[in-house]
Amino acid sequence: MGQFESSIESYEFDRATALRSDDRAVFHGDVAPGWDILGNANGGYLLAIVGRALSIATGRADCITVTAHYLAPCPAGPIRVEVSPVRAGRRFATATASMVQVDSGKEALRVVATLGDLATDPGGPTAMQDSRPDIVDFDDAWRVSETSINSFAFIHDRLATRADPRDIGFREGRPSGEGLVRGWFDFRDGRPIDSLALLLAADAFPPAVFNLALPTSWVPTVEMTVHVRAIPAPGPVACFFRTRFVQNGLLEEDGEMWDSAGTLVAQSRQLALAPRA
Amino acid sequence: MGQFESSIESYEFDRATALRSDDRAVFHGDVAPGWDILGNANGGYLLAIVGRALSIATGRADCITVTAHYLAPCPAGPIRVEVSPVRAGRRFATATASMVQVDSGKEALRVVATLGDLATDPGGPTAMQDSRPDIVDFDDAWRVSETSINSFAFIHDRLATRADPRDIGFREGRPSGEGLVRGWFDFRDGRPIDSLALLLAADAFPPAVFNLALPTSWVPTVEMTVHVRAIPAPGPVACFFRTRFVQNGLLEEDGEMWDSAGTLVAQSRQLALAPRA
Repeated sequence: MGQFESSIESYEFDRATALRSDDRAVFHGDVAPGWDILGNANGGYLLAIVGRALSIATGRADCITVTAHYLAPCPAGPIRVEVSPVRAGRRFATATASMVQVDSGKEALRVVATLGDLATDPGGPTAMQDSRPDIVDFDDAWRVSETSINSFAFIHDRLATRADPRDIGFREGRPSGEGLVRGWFDFRDGRPIDSLALLLAADAFPPAVFNLALPTSWVPTVEMTVHVRAIPAPGPVACFFRTRFVQNGLLEEDGEMWDSAGTLVAQSRQLALAPRA
Repeated sequence: MGQFESSIESYEFDRATALRSDDRAVFHGDVAPGWDILGNANGGYLLAIVGRALSIATGRADCITVTAHYLAPCPAGPIRVEVSPVRAGRRFATATASMVQVDSGKEALRVVATLGDLATDPGGPTAMQDSRPDIVDFDDAWRVSETSINSFAFIHDRLATRADPRDIGFREGRPSGEGLVRGWFDFRDGRPIDSLALLLAADAFPPAVFNLALPTSWVPTVEMTVHVRAIPAPGPVACFFRTRFVQNGLLEEDGEMWDSAGTLVAQSRQLALAPRA
């Protein structure tokens, strides 16, 4: 047990991202079972573990912009996160981090992030050009854990994610033909959605490319960047993921996350390998 | 003079991004004068210098996805780039890099990137959902160096960038009201546009936010990520930059770059601080 520990562990997500450290530089924890897609831990979940280490190491509450390069699939088991400070300014702090699987010695993620404190950030002008995109009402969305997606994406048993019924027929051979996946992110046990949870939300839904009639096989993330734009108001977060350009085996997936008050809380973009038959 | 040098220096961009190194780990060069906006070197130009170091260090031709966190403004003068390898696989190699101003000792950029070789990449499926957005024809676009933008963005004297006339009235008090800046990227001396030049193109135009009636003052980039999606065909590259969400002093700017053959060659996204009066 270390001197610096993440302390709020009454919720499953907090237990599954718990870390201990003696020096706020090297963190020890575990990739928990059950947060996986066919045995490999979800990329957003892994990023949230690293985000927690970055937050403790820099003393800043929120990852404002965080980029992860995914280097190797990561099964459940012990991990080590090493954080190296880069710059600590008044408003922002920048740091790099690396997550290593203890058993294999393999590095799973290399991360660079700039953190801040959104609750006390000095802010500035607002000029929104768009509002929340069209997503079915929460009550009309389907619980992902009760759909055919649950047969491979076991992470949804941990969550209360709901999907727009228009976007989840691909497992039954009915891709929508639009590169969209929309829905609502929430925790099963009522854990509030904070900036750390948004890192998970950014990668918690099935790939939007599955609605483009490509194979529903593995879509390995090469890189994902999340911008946290605000701390969410209470309630589930509306999520909108779109893939526009599948080109020569590479694709982008852009995400928008909006809270119950209609505030943009995060944007994400990942570069991934297109699924193959 | 070092053992490993970038050799093609017949073009101005190559001279301005030239590096020398004895060990392919620490690179020495100069931020050239004239690639600046009011004295601070353009962020895409700085990223291209780092991209060159990353390419030499990893032996891979192209940055496939590169993220830079901007830590301090960088005036002209000597710089040092240190590259640390992370992982070298068959298809991709990942590395981190840091650019330091020699005179001040200040770190200007911290970078993480995954590189590959697009000319020999195994590729994969294509399923494009959109084509090149509406941009005025090259011949009808205005040379930026001959517009009022040239009064502060001196980098355009180095380039043959052209802007869509609909998007550049902001300097004369006529912002378009749409968060768009469109145009064409090209070099004045006919240098071919390769993947390295796309890192420059991704940040070479005035901020799209200037068309939202906010002050045309400094828009400091916090973080920029560029995905290079293809090597451009010969000819100028069509560029499309859009800002949708200015919220509490932070904004994103999304870029798309398309070559003369209609191929998507790069996407970019940056998180920046909104301009203040």
